Amino acid sequence: MSNNPINLSKGNNVVIEERVSIGQNVSIGHNTVILEGTKIGDNVKIGCNCVLGIKANGTSNMRQIIENERSLVIKNDTKIGNMVSIYSGAFISRNIFIGDHASIRENVLIGENSVIGRAAIIELNSKIGKNCTIQTLAYITGDTTLEDNVFIGPCVSMSNDKYMGAKKYSLKGPHIKDGAKIGNNASILPGIIIGRKAIIGAGSVVTKDTSDEEIMVGVPAKKIKTLN
Amino acid sequence: MSNNPINLSKGNNVVIEERVSIGQNVSIGHNTVILEGTKIGDNVKIGCNCVLGIKANGTSNMRQIIENERSLVIKNDTKIGNMVSIYSGAFISRNIFIGDHASIRENVLIGENSVIGRAAIIELNSKIGKNCTIQTLAYITGDTTLEDNVFIGPCVSMSNDKYMGAKKYSLKGPHIKDGAKIGNNASILPGIIIGRKAIIGAGSVVTKDTSDEEIMVGVPAKKIKTLN
Amino acid sequence: MSNNPINLSKGNNVVIEERVSIGQNVSIGHNTVILEGTKIGDNVKIGCNCVLGIKANGTSNMRQIIENERSLVIKNDTKIGNMVSIYSGAFISRNIFIGDHASIRENVLIGENSVIGRAAIIELNSKIGKNCTIQTLAYITGDTTLEDNVFIGPCVSMSNDKYMGAKKYSLKGPHIKDGAKIGNNASILPGIIIGRKAIIGAGSVVTKDTSDEEIMVGVPAKKIKTLN
Repeated sequence: MSNNPINLSKGNNVVIEERVSIGQNVSIGHNTVILEGTKIGDNVKIGCNCVLGIKANGTSNMRQIIENERSLVIKNDTKIGNMVSIYSGAFISRNIFIGDHASIRENVLIGENSVIGRAAIIELNSKIGKNCTIQTLAYITGDTTLEDNVFIGPCVSMSNDKYMGAKKYSLKGPHIKDGAKIGNNASILPGIIIGRKAIIGAGSVVTKDTSDEEIMVGVPAKKIKTLN
Repeated sequence: MSNNPINLSKGNNVVIEERVSIGQNVSIGHNTVILEGTKIGDNVKIGCNCVLGIKANGTSNMRQIIENERSLVIKNDTKIGNMVSIYSGAFISRNIFIGDHASIRENVLIGENSVIGRAAIIELNSKIGKNCTIQTLAYITGDTTLEDNVFIGPCVSMSNDKYMGAKKYSLKGPHIKDGAKIGNNASILPGIIIGRKAIIGAGSVVTKDTSDEEIMVGVPAKKIKTLN
Repeated sequence: MSNNPINLSKGNNVVIEERVSIGQNVSIGHNTVILEGTKIGDNVKIGCNCVLGIKANGTSNMRQIIENERSLVIKNDTKIGNMVSIYSGAFISRNIFIGDHASIRENVLIGENSVIGRAAIIELNSKIGKNCTIQTLAYITGDTTLEDNVFIGPCVSMSNDKYMGAKKYSLKGPHIKDGAKIGNNASILPGIIIGRKAIIGAGSVVTKDTSDEEIMVGVPAKKIKTLN
C-alpha cells in the first residue's frame, strides 16, 4: 500500500500489492486481491474474493494488447460485490454498483450512478454513460458506446466482429443512444446504432440501425411503432 | 463459529465468521468464506473460493433493500460447488446441488432435491420448488415462482420489469407451473404464466400465457400442439 | 507439490495440494488453489482466485459420474485468467488462453492454440479442436464436438437433452465441423450437425443439420445462400 488509509476495514487473507492507494472509510472483504497501482476513493465497499487491477494478458493468436500503464481507478461511494474482476486501465466513476461475478476489462469508462448487474461483462474499450443500468448476465462487447440513461436488460448479447474472426482488427461494437432500452436476451449486431429512447423487444435480433424513439421487435427486428 | 462441529473437514485460508453453526460431517474447501450467522446442516459439502451468507447491498438508485435479519440456511446433504455466492436470507433445502459460479440472492427458497446449474443465477424473492432442474447459465429473475419438477434449459432468460426501469417497484417475474419444461435460450417476459407440463421450444420468446400441456415455439411463441 | 519447480512465481495464500507437478517458469496468482494430482507444464501463467483440478461431484438425482482417476493436465505456454474453475480429467493443450470466470469440466479436451472466452463454460465429455475461438459467455454443452478452426460467438447456447430431463442418459451435443462460424446468441439443438465452413447468423435457432458452406439465419434457421 502507498498510503495509510483512515478507517480501513480489511478482511482476512486480503492481498494489497505495491503502490495501491486507498481513501477513507473503505471496506475490503475477505480473500480479495488488490493488484499493483490500483487507486480507490473514499467510502468504497468491496466484497470478498475479488481481483481488482488485473493486467491485460493473451496468447499470440489473440487481438493485440495495447500496453497500458494506466491504473484501475475506483471513485468515491462505489460498491463492488463478491468475486468481481476488474482490469487495470478501467475508470469506475462515483456511486456505481457492480454486482457479484461481474467482469470489467481494460480501457472501460463507467459513468456516475450506473448499475452493473451480477455476472455482467463489459469488454475492453467500451464507454458506459451516466445513470445506465446493465442487468444480470448482459454482455457488452468491446468497442461499444452506451450514452447516458441506457437500460440493458438481462442476458442481452452484443457482438463487434462482423467477420467472426476471419479478418483482423475491424472491430466495432454497437452505439446505443441516450435513454434507449433493450429487452432481455436481445442480440445486437456489430456497429448497430440504436436511437435515443428507442425500445428493443425481448429476444429481438437487431440487424439494422434503429431511429430515435422507435420500438422494434422480432427476428430480424422490425419497427412496430414510434413513440409520440 | 458458534458450535464445535463433529468431523469438520476445513481447507486452508477458510474464513468462518461469528455465529456460524455447522452440522456433522461437513467439508469446506480452501479459501471459502462463511459469513456471519450462516447455518449449515449435516453432510454438507462446500467447494473452494465460495462466499456464503452475503448481506444485501446497493446504491441509492437501486431497488430498496428490505432489511433482513434472517440467516442463510443450508440443510442436510446439500452440495455446493466452487466460487458460489449465496446471500443471507436464502433457504437451501436438503439434497440440493449448486454448481460452480452460481449465485443465489436473499429471500430465495429452493426446494428439496433440486439442481442449480453452473453459473445459474437466482435473483431475490424467488421460489424454486422440489425436484427442479435449472441448467447452466440460466437466469431466474426476481419475484419468480417455479413449482415442482420444472426443467429450465441452459441460458434461459427471464425478466420481471415490463417498464425496463422507467417505473419503480412494479416488478413481477414469471410463474412456471408443475412439470413445465423450458428449452435452452428461451426468453420469458414479465408476469408470464406457463401451464403445467407445458413445453417451450429452444430460443422461443414467450409473450403470452401458456395453458397446461401446450407446446409453444417461435418468436413470438405460438402453440403448435397440445399433449394428449 | 511433487517436484521442485524452477523459477516458480507464487502469490500469497496459494494452496498447492499433494502430487501436483509444476514445470519451469510458471506463475500462480494470489489465492489460487491447485488441487491434488494436477500436472502443469512450462511457461504456464495462472491468475488469482482460480480452482484447478476439481473432482467431479453431484447428488443422487443427477447424471452418473464416471469415476475418473485422470488428472487435470495443462500443457506448456497456456494462460489462465482469474477465478477460473477446471476439473480433474480435463486436458488443456499448449498455447491456450482461458478467460476469467471460465469453467471447464471433466473429460474435456481442448486443442492447441484455442481461445476460451471470459465466463465461457465447457461441459463434460466435450472435445474442442485446434485454433478454435469460443467467445465470452458461450455455452458448450456436454458431449459436444468442435472440430478445428471453429468460431463460437458470444452467448451462443447449446443443449444436449432432447427430452429435457424426461428420459435419462440419451444425451448428445452438437457436432460443429471445421471452420464453421456461429453468430452471437444463436441456439443449437441437441445432436445437430453443422457443416464445414457453414455460417449461422446471430440469434438463429438451429433445429436441422446444416450442410457444408451453407449460411443459415432466423428462427428456425433457414438457408439463405451457399458460399461459392
